[in-house]
Amino acid sequence: MLKFEQFEEKTINRKEIYHGAIIDVALDDVRLPDGKTAKRELVFHPGGVGIIAFDTADRLLLVKQFRKPLEKVILEIPAGKIDPGEGQEPERTAARELEEETGYRPGKLTHLTSMYLSPGFANELLHIYHATDLEKIAQPLAQDEDEVLELYALTLEEAKQAMADQVICDAKTIYAVQYWELLMKGRGIG
Amino acid sequence: MLKFEQFEEKTINRKEIYHGAIIDVALDDVRLPDGKTAKRELVFHPGGVGIIAFDTADRLLLVKQFRKPLEKVILEIPAGKIDPGEGQEPERTAARELEEETGYRPGKLTHLTSMYLSPGFANELLHIYHATDLEKIAQPLAQDEDEVLELYALTLEEAKQAMADQVICDAKTIYAVQYWELLMKGRGIG
Repeated sequence: MLKFEQFEEKTINRKEIYHGAIIDVALDDVRLPDGKTAKRELVFHPGGVGIIAFDTADRLLLVKQFRKPLEKVILEIPAGKIDPGEGQEPERTAARELEEETGYRPGKLTHLTSMYLSPGFANELLHIYHATDLEKIAQPLAQDEDEVLELYALTLEEAKQAMADQVICDAKTIYAVQYWELLMKGRGIG
Repeated sequence: MLKFEQFEEKTINRKEIYHGAIIDVALDDVRLPDGKTAKRELVFHPGGVGIIAFDTADRLLLVKQFRKPLEKVILEIPAGKIDPGEGQEPERTAARELEEETGYRPGKLTHLTSMYLSPGFANELLHIYHATDLEKIAQPLAQDEDEVLELYALTLEEAKQAMADQVICDAKTIYAVQYWELLMKGRGIG
């Protein structure tokens, strides 16, 4: 393997473009390993979590939500960004988001994977957990004020159909459906 | 199902923040379905492709690349963004990127899925193809001038280990490894 240094792009200059509530944007001038220079557009994001959880009928819990960048309504696994103070413990974010979005509190959270979503321009890292031993909470944490969600529960066949119909169409939820399929095949089902 | 209108967020005002080479950034004021208003930070991206391809020894082709937003070197499936003029035919992007990054030209491209990577703030849509009937090109298309890549080929076991080691750590490549695992299980292997 070539060493890190043979690939590294060193920042010569950084121009801060935007400091927002969720993202920061910067434009770097970098020096490439061969000495040439290039521009890099960068989006900084605090990272987030996605939670794979099933109801008592073994259906995947999903939330329906309007996504402004897409101008459409899609079905996603419960998810949310890491709040200040939760950065070192994404499990706390996962427990909070699951309760806010579904009304279930997880007894156990198993970390499955962490994925960079758009490594070409963004540093957003998403941690995915499988939540088990769910407890239905009578008075769950309130949803975020600016979120309008509706809860769904789909069988594997329904989830695969929703993928074919592009209603399930984002990376973390597609990961969840594949994870579920592999889990079933591992158990000799499906 | 609730109707689209019951979820829609209407743009009241859009502030253009940045117009870049790869991304545009905007800040919207939106009206929520309940009449309240909220801010939405938006990143617009032309979209891209990722290509799943195997060498003659059935190893997955991967490229090693420094990713400035992460400040690290990772292994990814060949990928790239859609150039102007390719927008309606992401297959052309897939064929071009595979040749540029690996030196192989695909005889056949099968569309597997299209995924939004960060639907909360970005409209980037990534189309994933399985490339087959590869032909090694003597003088392939040149790599992008500002990219430094190194080609790898991993077995499924090696790819799963690379995932465990967080060397494979981005959404499209994790999708590829899961797809491969499901393909093997479908054939009764692994």
